[in-house]
Amino acid sequence: MAPDATVIHLTHGIARHDVRAGSLALWRVAPHLAPAVAVAVVDPGVGTGRRAVAVEVAAADGDLVLVGPDNGLLVPAAHRAGALRRAVVLDDDRWHLRQEGAGATFAGRDIFAPVAGHLAAGVDLSLLGSPLDPSSLVGGPLRTAVPDATGRIDATVLWIDHFGNVQLDVAAVDLPSGTATVRLRTASSAPAEVAVVSSYAALGPRPGLVPDSAGLLSLCVDRAHAGSTLGMVAGAKVVLETARTDLAGILGG
Amino acid sequence: MAPDATVIHLTHGIARHDVRAGSLALWRVAPHLAPAVAVAVVDPGVGTGRRAVAVEVAAADGDLVLVGPDNGLLVPAAHRAGALRRAVVLDDDRWHLRQEGAGATFAGRDIFAPVAGHLAAGVDLSLLGSPLDPSSLVGGPLRTAVPDATGRIDATVLWIDHFGNVQLDVAAVDLPSGTATVRLRTASSAPAEVAVVSSYAALGPRPGLVPDSAGLLSLCVDRAHAGSTLGMVAGAKVVLETARTDLAGILGG
Amino acid sequence: MAPDATVIHLTHGIARHDVRAGSLALWRVAPHLAPAVAVAVVDPGVGTGRRAVAVEVAAADGDLVLVGPDNGLLVPAAHRAGALRRAVVLDDDRWHLRQEGAGATFAGRDIFAPVAGHLAAGVDLSLLGSPLDPSSLVGGPLRTAVPDATGRIDATVLWIDHFGNVQLDVAAVDLPSGTATVRLRTASSAPAEVAVVSSYAALGPRPGLVPDSAGLLSLCVDRAHAGSTLGMVAGAKVVLETARTDLAGILGG
Repeated sequence: MAPDATVIHLTHGIARHDVRAGSLALWRVAPHLAPAVAVAVVDPGVGTGRRAVAVEVAAADGDLVLVGPDNGLLVPAAHRAGALRRAVVLDDDRWHLRQEGAGATFAGRDIFAPVAGHLAAGVDLSLLGSPLDPSSLVGGPLRTAVPDATGRIDATVLWIDHFGNVQLDVAAVDLPSGTATVRLRTASSAPAEVAVVSSYAALGPRPGLVPDSAGLLSLCVDRAHAGSTLGMVAGAKVVLETARTDLAGILGG
Repeated sequence: MAPDATVIHLTHGIARHDVRAGSLALWRVAPHLAPAVAVAVVDPGVGTGRRAVAVEVAAADGDLVLVGPDNGLLVPAAHRAGALRRAVVLDDDRWHLRQEGAGATFAGRDIFAPVAGHLAAGVDLSLLGSPLDPSSLVGGPLRTAVPDATGRIDATVLWIDHFGNVQLDVAAVDLPSGTATVRLRTASSAPAEVAVVSSYAALGPRPGLVPDSAGLLSLCVDRAHAGSTLGMVAGAKVVLETARTDLAGILGG
Repeated sequence: MAPDATVIHLTHGIARHDVRAGSLALWRVAPHLAPAVAVAVVDPGVGTGRRAVAVEVAAADGDLVLVGPDNGLLVPAAHRAGALRRAVVLDDDRWHLRQEGAGATFAGRDIFAPVAGHLAAGVDLSLLGSPLDPSSLVGGPLRTAVPDATGRIDATVLWIDHFGNVQLDVAAVDLPSGTATVRLRTASSAPAEVAVVSSYAALGPRPGLVPDSAGLLSLCVDRAHAGSTLGMVAGAKVVLETARTDLAGILGG
């Protein structure tokens, strides 16, 4: 359908049925995608009434069209990439792959990839199905946690990466300026003071926090799997107690 | 050898030495391959007398040449793609990669990929080696199981996919028309009545049968690994007892 | 940065933090790379003072530039590919990806890949950073073990491949001519006489040595995982006692 398209595989490593992990993988690369057509498929509701959609985003570097199931997979990345301009339900099967006798279990092959091919070849989004209000799509922008008035951050584990680093929903820039240590509370270990450093190697033998490549804080252990070591899983709650450096300065603390 | 060729990786996920799983992976994509040169390597007999071959198939969308070991890997896909037109033994090493001192353990690198490169660059099959009668190749078309006179289907597990779905060698279209449930007998569990539905989500909490993307029946559990849950492995025998809807109609059942 | 570049993924299967395994993966493909820009990232020291470098090699088929951390990953492959001509430290961040707020944990994305893109687009190595004496780079050529005067080879396990084959640092051509068996001593099993054969299938049910696709001896078990079966890991020591065929001939042994 689009023989001249350059095809880039972002990941085939999302765990089965894990829509949230898929949405975060897409969110992490969102600033680098446009101009492009991006297909994402983590789709446990395939074959049911969940909508198949395409969403067009006006990004800084050009248009980005995200194609996939309307189950929360696409929307965090769409919001990070730019402004949601328009969307359609993929209900016109003239653009789909129809294979005699095949069941409805593989929309990635039969709907999403062919639609993406036609988009890449220049077909306008509006031809692919019925218009849809982008604000009706499942999901929203990724929200990060920020310090409250006491310096406490109620954080959530977003993801454990391949190396075991535990990515939190806390932007490193939201730490009080000059923060060198944080008091960490988790469900699985005693409260502990941990360092905030800029590389894994600087951690030494203890766990600590490192601003990661997405600008989020990651809880890490140098050359070891922090998720396993600390008993953390995606979705777990973590409390970071930061010093209120402004008050500390005033009070001489 | 063929710098303008578009290279597509179908899978690197076949288990070690599992020629059968590889042949099925190729069979599943066979309708979508032509025109192309396809290299497949699952090759425990590498370095022995097993033949290295290339097989040309006249497919609906153009010619398909399959390149690999003659151990059953290529032939089911060849028959599904079209008519086997001609074949050669890859016994002319002028088309191979010769690397001084290297052993004979990696025909994928040294024979199959270079030959495929030359084919993609326009070299005619007949130049690559001695002609071979395609009917002498190891393997044949994939056979599916059909209901006997009593409605019983003696089926075999072809494959457990990444999600745990248990693909059977039964075409969904061969179920008696209107079949909504089937009595399932396996070696590892008590006989059970299971539903035939069109999506994983429609199964609810129980195992059931879903026509899959290849048009075959798959035994599935929604958002769980049916293979592990039901103790099934590739090659296992399964009996499906279908209602004889024609007789049932006549007898008022 | 280089939209016309052909991108080939060599492997994403190196174990976490295993610089040695990465350097060997690159070494194995080194004769096939040039002309190319090759990015390699196994980088536990990311964000520390370890140098980020690019190394230009004059290879038989053209120039090869290797880009990555200066931790031993690049140099064995560079020496195998050709003569190290010049090198730079990647200390000019105008060629890097700068993403506001991002941490320093992903040099693959932020330094190595963008630099490789610019190189592929024709930017000269000398523009990318400060010159560096190639002889100061970490690591050297891969050394293989050879028989001593008694025919004994003190070997090391380089790598256990996907199939479980145990690759040794012994070139098959360095075995005394006509060697059909070798006495094998490992830390984990009793000394045993093993065959040297040219295919896995020729081993029969016993472990043995097979000259592999890199020209090295691999300790293998047909259709089984030799590493697990024999309790071997990368870095383990192995002794091969070969017959001194020259003396054996003279002495009539």
